[in-house]
Amino acid sequence: MDQQMASDSFALSCPIPIQQYPAIVMAHGGGGRLMHQLIEKMFVATFASSALSQRHDSAQMELPAGRLAFTTDSYVVRPLFFPGGDIGKLAVYGTVNDLAMSGARPLYLSLGMILEEGLPMETLWQVVLSIAQAVRKTGVQIVTGDTKVVDRGKGDGIFLNTSGVGVIEHDLTIAPQAVRAGDAVILSGDIGRHGIAVMAVREGLEFESAIESDCAPLAEPVLALIGEGIEVRCLRDLTRGGLASAVVEIAEAARVQILLEEARIPVREDVRGACEILGFDPLYVANEGRFVAFVPAEQAERAVQTLRRFPACEGATVVGEVSRADEGTVILRSVIGTSRVVDMLSGEQLPRIC
Amino acid sequence: MDQQMASDSFALSCPIPIQQYPAIVMAHGGGGRLMHQLIEKMFVATFASSALSQRHDSAQMELPAGRLAFTTDSYVVRPLFFPGGDIGKLAVYGTVNDLAMSGARPLYLSLGMILEEGLPMETLWQVVLSIAQAVRKTGVQIVTGDTKVVDRGKGDGIFLNTSGVGVIEHDLTIAPQAVRAGDAVILSGDIGRHGIAVMAVREGLEFESAIESDCAPLAEPVLALIGEGIEVRCLRDLTRGGLASAVVEIAEAARVQILLEEARIPVREDVRGACEILGFDPLYVANEGRFVAFVPAEQAERAVQTLRRFPACEGATVVGEVSRADEGTVILRSVIGTSRVVDMLSGEQLPRIC
Repeated sequence: MDQQMASDSFALSCPIPIQQYPAIVMAHGGGGRLMHQLIEKMFVATFASSALSQRHDSAQMELPAGRLAFTTDSYVVRPLFFPGGDIGKLAVYGTVNDLAMSGARPLYLSLGMILEEGLPMETLWQVVLSIAQAVRKTGVQIVTGDTKVVDRGKGDGIFLNTSGVGVIEHDLTIAPQAVRAGDAVILSGDIGRHGIAVMAVREGLEFESAIESDCAPLAEPVLALIGEGIEVRCLRDLTRGGLASAVVEIAEAARVQILLEEARIPVREDVRGACEILGFDPLYVANEGRFVAFVPAEQAERAVQTLRRFPACEGATVVGEVSRADEGTVILRSVIGTSRVVDMLSGEQLPRIC
Repeated sequence: MDQQMASDSFALSCPIPIQQYPAIVMAHGGGGRLMHQLIEKMFVATFASSALSQRHDSAQMELPAGRLAFTTDSYVVRPLFFPGGDIGKLAVYGTVNDLAMSGARPLYLSLGMILEEGLPMETLWQVVLSIAQAVRKTGVQIVTGDTKVVDRGKGDGIFLNTSGVGVIEHDLTIAPQAVRAGDAVILSGDIGRHGIAVMAVREGLEFESAIESDCAPLAEPVLALIGEGIEVRCLRDLTRGGLASAVVEIAEAARVQILLEEARIPVREDVRGACEILGFDPLYVANEGRFVAFVPAEQAERAVQTLRRFPACEGATVVGEVSRADEGTVILRSVIGTSRVVDMLSGEQLPRIC
């Protein structure tokens, strides 16, 4: 149990009597007394937000002036806990990061849970604690939620959905369509750790030292970029499909050619080693705390310095440029000087990574 | 295929070549080419909203002046299709209704899908078509989405999550805390149809005529009540746990005693018969197009007349009153004049009803 958790004020023992209810039963999703107990004692008490405690079908909030950003993600990661994170932390940071990628200030989250009958109550409690910690760390509030239970064998422990609402306080157009030839491509840190961390525990692989997921919230560094007056053109977090898929998607939507310099893309030695053993290309491995930012070339150095003030982005660096208008291609110049076209994979190397 | 569907302008045949991809594979959730095809060709094309077609991690919208309402629900109904509805229609109407229950005008929906490997592509397409129809009917827009695929045997075909954003344009406090002794309790129509419709198909029961789910969108009738100047005190839709659980929840939160008159609560004869055969109490059976409204007694008649203008509420009627301040109880006066306390069940009679 780490320092932060110990200093949190919510109860650290499961508020549902485990001896009486060692596991989730169908009635925990049935709309009756048992579901209400679970919601009141475990969720409302732990997530403590004023909107949630209204116990209404929908939450009501004031929204500051600005445009609205709205996003959703479901989380089905397997296993539920992995080095550096768990499904709960992922569900908060992932959705906060999706809001951040439009330059929005994340404000409110919803939380939908699909629980499998037989899920140990203690496991649910650990995930709920993790969600509560992540929520505090990012300053968002869970304002509305929903709980469903499915029969044993019709789910996989816990699936989560978080949707997020944020406010856009700037006038920038942050979108692939804003990308211009000449823009610099900034990568916020080393790639591949989340995918390898999950894969290692799933497959029982042992490395010299545990590779931890890079899972981290990204709203603060993004808002700092905007606050510094950087004319951010496009942002994208590097989740499913990794750096390669994200950049290809932007190149195609923006109709530009993007040139990446392999030598500049940071990959930790242990991650590179694991990728070689497993036959993975780190360019396609999922991350949960990394993003690319497209900015005007003349602002790139200032953008990198701004990002490096944040621990999650201390490895930020320029890894390429938008070389010209085009049908939408990504070229990787390798360490030895050869060039190849980067495409999306058909599927992905690792299923159920988030 | 009904009239409305035939007049819709979206393609009616599955836009993914079924011979090539007869079923969902893991790669459809992998972040690569196959997932993008599914999203572009099936989801973005069919749901056609400007925000969705920006292909961004989060959608950006203007929000009209007013307070924000935000809600979420996951849908795990079994089977996916039942008389009068399916999981897609349920996922749109259910979340629209949760917004309506705070008197909000529903505007934007998110759509999260958790698909099981092996799900027939044609089944997914039918659900997507149903979602698109329901979205058009309610006037909301799907602005952001997410698709995950889980291994065969770790899901159950399709689970959906919809979150909804609406705007509250009135100054009423619509909440249990606003309920006062003397208020009338209005029920919007007959109860028990959704639960019995799902149960019948699940258990292979045959009735003389099919009992169809009451699944319907409720925002228009609710906004009409408010537009007519009715001082709505509290609204609640009668989903999991049925009328009984909803009213008990309100009584407890408002700390009042609510008196219901059994003779005034409409239950269709075929539904009553099915309940008797199955040993169900219709008071606890889930509905998907019914709600209760608490209004000042002197406005009750006008409220009922306003609701009856809408087909989904043509059976609206006063079924009880808030009799006095109290610790929070619900009393049912039976047809023969006896009284009993109504409580929530521990679980529910029917699992996976929504």
